[in-house]
Amino acid sequence: MIRHTVVFTLKHAKGSAEEAAFLKAADILAKIPGVENFEKLRQVSPKNNYAFGFSMEFADQRAYDGYNIHPDHVAFVRDRWVPEVADFMEIDYTPLGRQPVERPRPGGSAAAISR
Amino acid sequence: MIRHTVVFTLKHAKGSAEEAAFLKAADILAKIPGVENFEKLRQVSPKNNYAFGFSMEFADQRAYDGYNIHPDHVAFVRDRWVPEVADFMEIDYTPLGRQPVERPRPGGSAAAISR
Repeated sequence: MIRHTVVFTLKHAKGSAEEAAFLKAADILAKIPGVENFEKLRQVSPKNNYAFGFSMEFADQRAYDGYNIHPDHVAFVRDRWVPEVADFMEIDYTPLGRQPVERPRPGGSAAAISR
Repeated sequence: MIRHTVVFTLKHAKGSAEEAAFLKAADILAKIPGVENFEKLRQVSPKNNYAFGFSMEFADQRAYDGYNIHPDHVAFVRDRWVPEVADFMEIDYTPLGRQPVERPRPGGSAAAISR
């Protein structure tokens, strides 16, 4: 499992319609194949300056790669993320002491074995 | 729900016995009352320089406060975190669009109502 997270601030005013529209638009990311446990989060620690976060999980690097190149992700980054995000940091996690696990795909395990 | 996370690097050499000992010592945090879903994580994104992460969840701010002042947490910060951690950032999340929920404590809901 790889947990992909990004913590960020927007250029929009706090509580603005533009802020709400951006956060709503991000729902499309949850529908991209391979994305699991998608979460939209509010960052609440006073120890950093970020306001929001997204978190999602992938079964393995292949699923993560598929997300990165998916047209809906590419379009979201180009049309919303780049113009509307002021600052961000990506943090990705895997459980400590384990490597990302290859899960056999429905229909056969040949793909997992071939890697 | 409040998810408390911290991403960090250690002063120890990668793969060293000191690194393993620090990570093992952190298990005590999982046993502190109020800590849920404690995770020890490896940070794997090349887009930041942190190596590890801890993540835990609290039902509400009261549980989080109780963790912060718990003697086992205070001792871990003093005896392990401060001397052994080179750099870190705390990021705390709540689900977007919801405030942290007060959950009635066993034995009655008066405490939740009184807040």
